[in-house]
Amino acid sequence: MILDTLKKYDIVLASGSPRRKHLLKEMGLEFRVETRKVKERFSDDLTPAEGALFLSELKSRAFQNEDMKDNTLLITADTIVSVKGEILGKPHNKEQASEILRKLSGTNHEVITGMTLRIKDRFHSFYATTEVYFKHLSEEEIDYYIENYKPFDKAGAYGIQEWIGHVAIYRIDGSYFNVMGLPTHRLFDELDIFLK
Amino acid sequence: MILDTLKKYDIVLASGSPRRKHLLKEMGLEFRVETRKVKERFSDDLTPAEGALFLSELKSRAFQNEDMKDNTLLITADTIVSVKGEILGKPHNKEQASEILRKLSGTNHEVITGMTLRIKDRFHSFYATTEVYFKHLSEEEIDYYIENYKPFDKAGAYGIQEWIGHVAIYRIDGSYFNVMGLPTHRLFDELDIFLK
Repeated sequence: MILDTLKKYDIVLASGSPRRKHLLKEMGLEFRVETRKVKERFSDDLTPAEGALFLSELKSRAFQNEDMKDNTLLITADTIVSVKGEILGKPHNKEQASEILRKLSGTNHEVITGMTLRIKDRFHSFYATTEVYFKHLSEEEIDYYIENYKPFDKAGAYGIQEWIGHVAIYRIDGSYFNVMGLPTHRLFDELDIFLK
Repeated sequence: MILDTLKKYDIVLASGSPRRKHLLKEMGLEFRVETRKVKERFSDDLTPAEGALFLSELKSRAFQNEDMKDNTLLITADTIVSVKGEILGKPHNKEQASEILRKLSGTNHEVITGMTLRIKDRFHSFYATTEVYFKHLSEEEIDYYIENYKPFDKAGAYGIQEWIGHVAIYRIDGSYFNVMGLPTHRLFDELDIFLK
Protein backbone atom coordinates (compact mmCIF):
# COMPACT_ATOMS: atom_id res chain seq x y z
CA MET A 1 0.00 0.00 0.00
CA ILE A 2 1.05 3.61 -0.57
CA LEU A 3 1.64 4.11 3.18
CA ASP A 4 4.52 1.62 2.98
CA THR A 5 5.99 3.31 -0.11
CA LEU A 6 5.82 6.69 1.66
CA LYS A 7 8.06 5.49 4.49
CA LYS A 8 11.02 5.80 2.06
CA TYR A 9 10.42 9.55 1.63
CA ASP A 10 11.38 12.60 3.63
CA ILE A 11 7.96 14.24 3.52
CA VAL A 12 7.80 18.01 3.97
CA LEU A 13 4.52 19.84 4.43
CA ALA A 14 5.07 23.49 3.51
CA SER A 15 2.08 24.94 5.34
CA GLY A 16 1.65 26.73 8.64
CA SER A 17 -1.98 25.60 8.94
CA PRO A 18 -2.61 23.43 12.01
CA ARG A 19 -5.61 21.96 10.19
CA ARG A 20 -3.51 20.69 7.26
CA LYS A 21 -0.99 19.26 9.71
CA HIS A 22 -3.80 17.46 11.53
CA LEU A 23 -5.30 16.07 8.31
CA LEU A 24 -1.98 14.78 6.96
CA LYS A 25 -1.43 13.01 10.27
CA GLU A 26 -4.90 11.44 10.11
CA MET A 27 -3.98 10.04 6.68
CA GLY A 28 -1.22 8.08 8.38
CA LEU A 29 1.73 10.05 6.95
CA GLU A 30 4.91 10.90 8.82
CA PHE A 31 6.28 14.30 7.89
CA ARG A 32 7.91 17.50 9.04
CA VAL A 33 6.76 21.08 8.53
CA GLU A 34 8.92 23.68 6.81
CA THR A 35 7.58 26.85 5.21
CA ARG A 36 8.76 29.64 2.92
CA LYS A 37 7.27 33.13 2.66
CA VAL A 38 5.52 33.86 -0.64
CA LYS A 39 3.32 36.71 -1.86
CA GLU A 40 -0.10 35.14 -2.08
CA ARG A 41 -1.29 37.05 -5.14
CA PHE A 42 -2.36 36.04 -8.59
CA SER A 43 -3.60 37.67 -11.76
CA ASP A 44 -7.26 38.78 -11.95
CA ASP A 45 -7.88 36.81 -15.11
CA LEU A 46 -7.35 33.43 -13.42
CA THR A 47 -10.37 31.37 -12.36
CA PRO A 48 -10.53 30.36 -8.66
CA ALA A 49 -9.23 26.87 -9.57
CA GLU A 50 -6.38 28.32 -11.63
CA GLY A 51 -5.57 30.69 -8.76
CA ALA A 52 -5.44 27.85 -6.22
CA LEU A 53 -3.16 25.83 -8.52
CA PHE A 54 -0.95 28.84 -9.20
CA LEU A 55 -0.47 29.57 -5.48
CA SER A 56 0.21 25.94 -4.51
CA GLU A 57 2.85 25.81 -7.29
CA LEU A 58 4.28 29.17 -6.16
CA LYS A 59 4.65 27.82 -2.60
CA SER A 60 6.35 24.73 -4.04
CA ARG A 61 8.76 26.70 -6.25
CA ALA A 62 9.74 28.81 -3.22
CA PHE A 63 12.00 25.86 -2.31
CA GLN A 64 15.33 25.54 -4.11
CA ASN A 65 16.51 22.23 -5.55
CA GLU A 66 19.46 22.47 -3.15
CA ASP A 67 17.03 22.62 -0.21
CA MET A 68 15.75 19.19 -1.11
CA LYS A 69 17.21 15.75 -0.61
CA ASP A 70 16.80 13.15 -3.37
CA ASN A 71 13.98 11.56 -1.41
CA THR A 72 12.31 14.78 -0.24
CA LEU A 73 8.62 14.87 -1.14
CA LEU A 74 7.32 18.41 -0.82
CA ILE A 75 3.59 18.99 -0.30
CA THR A 76 2.01 22.43 -0.75
CA ALA A 77 -1.60 23.57 -0.87
CA ASP A 78 -3.72 26.66 -1.26
CA THR A 79 -7.41 27.01 -0.49
CA ILE A 80 -9.67 29.56 -2.16
CA VAL A 81 -13.26 30.43 -1.32
CA SER A 82 -15.41 31.80 -4.09
CA VAL A 83 -19.04 32.94 -4.04
CA LYS A 84 -20.84 33.70 -7.32
CA GLY A 85 -17.45 34.07 -9.06
CA GLU A 86 -16.04 36.48 -6.44
CA ILE A 87 -12.95 35.31 -4.57
CA LEU A 88 -13.15 35.96 -0.82
CA GLY A 89 -9.84 36.48 0.96
CA LYS A 90 -8.86 36.28 4.59
CA PRO A 91 -10.46 39.01 6.73
CA HIS A 92 -8.16 41.39 8.57
CA ASN A 93 -10.66 42.58 11.15
CA LYS A 94 -14.14 42.08 12.61
CA GLU A 95 -15.81 44.28 9.98
CA GLN A 96 -14.28 42.41 7.05
CA ALA A 97 -15.18 39.06 8.63
CA SER A 98 -18.83 40.18 9.05
CA GLU A 99 -18.93 41.39 5.48
CA ILE A 100 -17.64 38.06 4.14
CA LEU A 101 -20.03 36.00 6.29
CA ARG A 102 -22.97 38.10 5.13
CA LYS A 103 -22.01 37.16 1.55
CA LEU A 104 -22.02 33.45 2.44
CA SER A 105 -25.32 33.65 4.39
CA GLY A 106 -28.32 31.91 2.82
CA THR A 107 -26.45 30.72 -0.26
CA ASN A 108 -23.83 28.27 -1.50
CA HIS A 109 -20.19 28.85 -2.33
CA GLU A 110 -17.20 26.90 -3.62
CA VAL A 111 -14.13 25.87 -1.68
CA ILE A 112 -11.24 24.92 -3.94
CA THR A 113 -7.93 23.52 -2.76
CA GLY A 114 -5.04 23.35 -5.18
CA MET A 115 -2.17 21.03 -4.29
CA THR A 116 1.34 20.45 -5.60
CA LEU A 117 3.55 17.44 -4.97
CA ARG A 118 7.22 17.91 -5.76
CA ILE A 119 10.35 15.75 -5.83
CA LYS A 120 13.37 17.85 -6.89
CA ASP A 121 12.36 19.24 -10.30
CA ARG A 122 9.28 17.07 -10.84
CA PHE A 123 5.95 18.73 -10.04
CA HIS A 124 2.48 17.18 -9.90
CA SER A 125 -0.57 19.41 -9.31
CA PHE A 126 -4.30 18.90 -8.93
CA TYR A 127 -7.29 20.51 -7.23
CA ALA A 128 -10.59 19.55 -5.66
CA THR A 129 -13.83 21.51 -5.31
CA THR A 130 -16.52 21.27 -2.63
CA GLU A 131 -19.84 23.12 -2.73
CA VAL A 132 -20.87 24.42 0.72
CA TYR A 133 -24.42 25.53 1.63
CA PHE A 134 -25.02 28.00 4.45
CA LYS A 135 -28.42 28.67 6.00
CA HIS A 136 -29.39 32.29 6.60
CA LEU A 137 -27.14 33.74 9.32
CA SER A 138 -28.56 36.32 11.74
CA GLU A 139 -26.38 39.30 12.71
CA GLU A 140 -26.41 37.86 16.24
CA GLU A 141 -25.00 34.55 15.00
CA ILE A 142 -22.33 36.30 12.90
CA ASP A 143 -21.30 38.44 15.90
CA TYR A 144 -21.29 35.43 18.26
CA TYR A 145 -19.07 33.45 15.89
CA ILE A 146 -16.54 36.21 15.18
CA GLU A 147 -16.36 37.18 18.86
CA ASN A 148 -15.72 33.60 20.02
CA TYR A 149 -13.71 32.12 17.15
CA LYS A 150 -11.85 35.09 15.60
CA PRO A 151 -11.64 33.57 12.07
CA PHE A 152 -9.01 36.03 10.80
CA ASP A 153 -6.58 33.44 9.45
CA LYS A 154 -9.21 31.70 7.34
CA ALA A 155 -10.19 32.15 3.69
CA GLY A 156 -13.93 32.83 3.69
CA ALA A 157 -13.81 33.88 7.37
CA TYR A 158 -14.99 30.54 8.74
CA GLY A 159 -13.80 27.09 9.76
CA ILE A 160 -16.24 24.28 8.93
CA GLN A 161 -14.95 22.38 11.97
CA GLU A 162 -15.95 25.25 14.28
CA TRP A 163 -19.29 26.30 15.81
CA ILE A 164 -20.58 27.94 12.64
CA GLY A 165 -19.90 24.80 10.63
CA HIS A 166 -21.94 22.75 13.07
CA VAL A 167 -25.00 24.98 13.28
CA ALA A 168 -25.18 26.81 9.94
CA ILE A 169 -23.86 24.50 7.20
CA TYR A 170 -26.73 22.21 6.23
CA ARG A 171 -25.17 20.59 3.20
CA ILE A 172 -21.87 20.04 1.48
CA ASP A 173 -21.39 18.36 -1.88
CA GLY A 174 -17.87 17.00 -2.19
CA SER A 175 -15.13 16.31 0.34
CA TYR A 176 -15.42 17.68 3.90
CA PHE A 177 -11.66 17.64 4.49
CA ASN A 178 -11.17 19.72 1.34
CA VAL A 179 -13.17 22.48 3.06
CA MET A 180 -10.79 22.19 6.03
CA GLY A 181 -7.93 22.82 3.60
CA LEU A 182 -6.68 19.48 2.31
CA PRO A 183 -8.50 17.11 -0.11
CA THR A 184 -7.16 14.03 1.66
CA HIS A 185 -8.82 11.45 -0.62
CA ARG A 186 -7.34 13.09 -3.72
CA LEU A 187 -3.92 13.44 -2.12
CA PHE A 188 -3.98 9.72 -1.28
CA ASP A 189 -4.78 8.80 -4.91
CA GLU A 190 -2.38 11.31 -6.45
CA LEU A 191 0.53 10.17 -4.24
CA ASP A 192 -0.06 6.70 -5.65
CA ILE A 193 0.09 8.07 -9.21
CA PHE A 194 3.07 10.41 -8.65
CA LEU A 195 5.24 7.84 -6.86
CA LYS A 196 4.60 4.99 -9.28
CA MET B 1 -30.30 33.44 20.28
CA ILE B 2 -31.23 29.82 21.02
CA LEU B 3 -27.98 29.33 22.98
CA ASP B 4 -29.27 31.84 25.57
CA THR B 5 -32.69 30.13 25.77
CA LEU B 6 -30.97 26.76 26.28
CA LYS B 7 -29.22 27.97 29.43
CA LYS B 8 -32.58 27.65 31.26
CA TYR B 9 -32.74 23.92 30.54
CA ASP B 10 -31.24 20.86 32.20
CA ILE B 11 -30.05 19.21 29.00
CA VAL B 12 -29.55 15.44 29.03
CA LEU B 13 -27.88 13.61 26.17
CA ALA B 14 -28.95 9.96 26.32
CA SER B 15 -26.12 8.51 24.27
CA GLY B 16 -22.89 6.73 25.12
CA SER B 17 -21.24 7.86 21.89
CA PRO B 18 -18.17 10.03 22.46
CA ARG B 19 -18.73 11.49 18.97
CA ARG B 20 -22.23 12.75 19.81
CA LYS B 21 -20.92 14.21 23.07
CA HIS B 22 -18.18 15.99 21.15
CA LEU B 23 -20.59 17.39 18.55
CA LEU B 24 -23.10 18.67 21.10
CA LYS B 25 -20.26 20.45 22.85
CA GLU B 26 -19.07 22.02 19.59
CA MET B 27 -22.60 23.41 19.13
CA GLY B 28 -22.07 25.37 22.33
CA LEU B 29 -24.51 23.41 24.52
CA GLU B 30 -23.98 22.57 28.18
CA PHE B 31 -25.37 19.17 29.10
CA ARG B 32 -24.91 15.97 31.06
CA VAL B 33 -24.94 12.38 29.78
CA GLU B 34 -27.35 9.78 31.15
CA THR B 35 -28.31 6.60 29.31
CA ARG B 36 -30.89 3.81 29.56
CA LYS B 37 -30.53 0.33 28.08
CA VAL B 38 -32.93 -0.42 25.21
CA LYS B 39 -33.23 -3.28 22.74
CA GLU B 40 -32.12 -1.71 19.47
CA ARG B 41 -34.53 -3.62 17.23
CA PHE B 42 -37.32 -2.64 14.92
CA SER B 43 -39.78 -4.27 12.57
CA ASP B 44 -38.57 -5.39 9.12
CA ASP B 45 -41.26 -3.42 7.35
CA LEU B 46 -39.89 -0.04 8.44
CA THR B 47 -37.74 2.00 6.05
CA PRO B 48 -34.27 3.03 7.31
CA ALA B 49 -35.61 6.52 8.17
CA GLU B 50 -38.59 5.07 10.02
CA GLY B 51 -36.25 2.71 11.87
CA ALA B 52 -33.94 5.55 12.94
CA LEU B 53 -36.93 7.59 14.18
CA PHE B 54 -38.41 4.56 15.96
CA LEU B 55 -35.15 3.86 17.82
CA SER B 56 -34.51 7.47 18.81
CA GLU B 57 -38.08 7.60 20.20
CA LEU B 58 -37.58 4.26 21.96
CA LYS B 59 -34.43 5.61 23.64
CA SER B 60 -36.40 8.70 24.67
CA ARG B 61 -39.36 6.73 26.06
CA ALA B 62 -36.93 4.62 28.14
CA PHE B 63 -36.95 7.58 30.54
CA GLN B 64 -39.89 7.91 32.94
CA ASN B 65 -41.67 11.23 33.48
CA GLU B 66 -40.56 10.99 37.12
CA ASP B 67 -36.92 10.83 35.98
CA MET B 68 -37.27 14.27 34.46
CA LYS B 69 -37.36 17.71 35.98
CA ASP B 70 -39.77 20.29 34.56
CA ASN B 71 -36.89 21.89 32.69
CA THR B 72 -35.17 18.68 31.59
CA LEU B 73 -34.60 18.58 27.84
CA LEU B 74 -33.82 15.03 26.76
CA ILE B 75 -31.91 14.44 23.51
CA THR B 76 -31.72 11.00 21.89
CA ALA B 77 -30.46 9.85 18.50
CA ASP B 78 -30.01 6.75 16.41
CA THR B 79 -27.89 6.39 13.28
CA ILE B 80 -28.58 3.85 10.57
CA VAL B 81 -26.43 2.97 7.56
CA SER B 82 -28.17 1.58 4.53
CA VAL B 83 -26.76 0.44 1.19
CA LYS B 84 -29.11 -0.32 -1.71
CA GLY B 85 -32.00 -0.70 0.77
CA GLU B 86 -30.11 -3.09 3.06
CA ILE B 87 -29.56 -1.91 6.64
CA LEU B 88 -26.01 -2.56 7.87
CA GLY B 89 -25.62 -3.07 11.61
CA LYS B 90 -22.61 -2.85 13.90
CA PRO B 91 -20.03 -5.58 13.23
CA HIS B 92 -19.19 -7.96 16.08
CA ASN B 93 -15.86 -9.13 14.74
CA LYS B 94 -13.20 -8.65 12.07
CA GLU B 95 -14.99 -10.86 9.54
CA GLN B 96 -18.28 -8.98 9.83
CA ALA B 97 -16.47 -5.64 9.59
CA SER B 98 -14.70 -6.76 6.37
CA GLU B 99 -17.98 -7.99 4.93
CA ILE B 100 -19.70 -4.65 5.61
CA LEU B 101 -16.80 -2.59 4.20
CA ARG B 102 -16.78 -4.70 1.02
CA LYS B 103 -20.45 -3.77 0.58
CA LEU B 104 -19.60 -0.05 0.90
CA SER B 105 -16.56 -0.26 -1.42
CA GLY B 106 -16.89 1.47 -4.79
CA THR B 107 -20.45 2.66 -4.24
CA ASN B 108 -22.59 5.11 -2.29
CA HIS B 109 -24.75 4.54 0.77
CA GLU B 110 -27.08 6.50 3.04
CA VAL B 111 -26.45 7.54 6.61
CA ILE B 112 -29.65 8.49 8.42
CA THR B 113 -29.80 9.89 11.93
CA GLY B 114 -33.16 10.05 13.69
CA MET B 115 -33.42 12.38 16.69
CA THR B 116 -35.97 12.97 19.42
CA LEU B 117 -36.21 15.99 21.70
CA ARG B 118 -38.35 15.53 24.81
CA ILE B 119 -39.60 17.69 27.66
CA LYS B 120 -41.72 15.60 30.07
CA ASP B 121 -44.49 14.17 27.84
CA ARG B 122 -43.83 16.35 24.79
CA PHE B 123 -41.82 14.69 22.00
CA HIS B 124 -40.37 16.23 18.84
CA SER B 125 -38.67 13.99 16.25
CA PHE B 126 -36.90 14.49 12.94
CA TYR B 127 -34.20 12.89 10.83
CA ALA B 128 -31.48 13.84 8.35
CA THR B 129 -29.92 11.89 5.50
CA THR B 130 -26.43 12.13 4.02
CA GLU B 131 -25.25 10.27 0.95
CA VAL B 132 -21.67 8.98 1.28
CA TYR B 133 -19.47 7.88 -1.65
CA PHE B 134 -16.62 5.40 -1.14
CA LYS B 135 -13.90 4.72 -3.70
CA HIS B 136 -12.97 1.10 -4.34
CA LEU B 137 -11.30 -0.33 -1.24
CA SER B 138 -8.53 -2.91 -1.62
CA GLU B 139 -8.44 -5.88 0.76
CA GLU B 140 -5.19 -4.44 2.09
CA GLU B 141 -6.87 -1.13 2.90
CA ILE B 142 -9.81 -2.86 4.59
CA ASP B 143 -7.44 -4.99 6.69
CA TYR B 144 -5.27 -1.99 7.59
CA TYR B 145 -8.30 -0.01 8.74
CA ILE B 146 -9.90 -2.77 10.81
CA GLU B 147 -6.57 -3.72 12.38
CA ASN B 148 -5.74 -0.14 13.40
CA TYR B 149 -9.17 1.34 14.16
CA LYS B 150 -11.31 -1.63 15.30
CA PRO B 151 -14.64 -0.13 14.16
CA PHE B 152 -16.81 -2.58 16.11
CA ASP B 153 -19.00 0.00 17.85
CA LYS B 154 -19.95 1.73 14.60
CA ALA B 155 -22.96 1.26 12.32
CA GLY B 156 -21.54 0.58 8.85
CA ALA B 157 -18.17 -0.46 10.35
CA TYR B 158 -16.47 2.89 9.80
CA GLY B 159 -15.99 6.35 11.27
CA ILE B 160 -15.83 9.15 8.69
CA GLN B 161 -13.51 11.08 11.04
CA GLU B 162 -10.99 8.19 11.00
CA TRP B 163 -8.31 7.15 8.48
CA ILE B 164 -10.74 5.49 6.09
CA GLY B 165 -12.88 8.63 5.96
CA HIS B 166 -9.84 10.68 4.98
CA VAL B 167 -8.49 8.44 2.25
CA ALA B 168 -11.51 6.59 0.80
CA ILE B 169 -14.54 8.91 0.97
CA TYR B 170 -14.35 11.19 -2.05
CA ARG B 171 -17.76 12.82 -1.75
CA ILE B 172 -20.60 13.35 0.65
CA ASP B 173 -23.89 15.02 -0.19
CA GLY B 174 -25.52 16.40 2.94
CA SER B 175 -24.21 17.08 6.44
CA TYR B 176 -20.81 15.73 7.52
CA PHE B 177 -21.70 15.79 11.22
CA ASN B 178 -24.79 13.70 10.48
CA VAL B 179 -22.44 10.95 9.29
CA MET B 180 -20.58 11.23 12.62
CA GLY B 181 -23.93 10.60 14.36
CA LEU B 182 -25.59 13.96 15.00
CA PRO B 183 -27.14 16.30 12.39
CA THR B 184 -26.03 19.39 14.30
CA HIS B 185 -27.51 21.96 11.88
CA ARG B 186 -30.95 20.32 12.09
CA LEU B 187 -30.76 19.98 15.86
CA PHE B 188 -29.97 23.71 16.10
CA ASP B 189 -33.03 24.61 13.99
CA GLU B 190 -35.36 22.10 15.64
CA LEU B 191 -34.40 23.25 19.15
CA ASP B 192 -35.51 26.72 18.06
CA ILE B 193 -38.85 25.34 16.87
CA PHE B 194 -39.45 23.00 19.83
CA LEU B 195 -38.63 25.58 22.53
CA LYS B 196 -40.65 28.42 21.02
